[in-house]
Amino acid sequence: MQENASPPPIYLEDLSVGDVFVSKTHALDAAQIIAFASQFDPQPFHLDADAARDTLFQGLAASGWHTAALTMKLLVESFPVARGVIGAGADIAWPQPTRPDDVVKATSTVLAITPSRSKPDRAIVVVETITSNQRDETLQKLTSKVVVFRRP
Amino acid sequence: MQENASPPPIYLEDLSVGDVFVSKTHALDAAQIIAFASQFDPQPFHLDADAARDTLFQGLAASGWHTAALTMKLLVESFPVARGVIGAGADIAWPQPTRPDDVVKATSTVLAITPSRSKPDRAIVVVETITSNQRDETLQKLTSKVVVFRRP
Repeated sequence: MQENASPPPIYLEDLSVGDVFVSKTHALDAAQIIAFASQFDPQPFHLDADAARDTLFQGLAASGWHTAALTMKLLVESFPVARGVIGAGADIAWPQPTRPDDVVKATSTVLAITPSRSKPDRAIVVVETITSNQRDETLQKLTSKVVVFRRP
Repeated sequence: MQENASPPPIYLEDLSVGDVFVSKTHALDAAQIIAFASQFDPQPFHLDADAARDTLFQGLAASGWHTAALTMKLLVESFPVARGVIGAGADIAWPQPTRPDDVVKATSTVLAITPSRSKPDRAIVVVETITSNQRDETLQKLTSKVVVFRRP
């Protein structure tokens, strides 16, 4: 487990299956939720606490894409892959809504490492990133494939 | 195919497998890309055109999560499910980067409709949303499961 404000860049040689990287936390609030939703997901349950009460969410909830974007911010800080955290794709699930008072954290686990056959300087690393709140409730589960380079 | 500024809400009875919904367009630019990345994905290839030149992206590129967020904006307008576009999860892939001069559009196709067994008022609808640019290049492929209600 690594927890660090500004850790050194990660190369392929630094990673093993099972490694865990824990991010700092980010404190959400209603203003952030509404600002994101106004721009990208303008639906009542993401925009207005009163209007949200009578929806499936039963109260103001962050857009899932806001949770995803915040997770990326936490991931870039906590899993600083050399030459950048670059994903080709991902599976994402939101088991429960992210709420205005949530303090979110991203915990990333290396699930698999597959060296590239055509490009020997790199591998595809499968990373599972769980976004949780201060009550350790899982808000998002993200499984992504990230390119990681060997040390030059 | 439906293309409309403000179409009526969609209920389950309105949907068939194969239905296609085309969004309006959104013109991206470097300022939007940098603003999103500064907040959520602060990596050189999303922040600075000069620094981006020597990276895997070979030029400024939008965060994949920015493309996802813009797609949600276009989807909410073009696929206005009654009671809201609410996804439990999704698969996402970014076959090529979104660039500052891209004019993006989301084209959504209904792939499957599975009525809920426990809750007869709703179904899970699998929707594939392709985000493309003005050259019809695919920037993102999103497959999501959306809750759609029967007409009350």
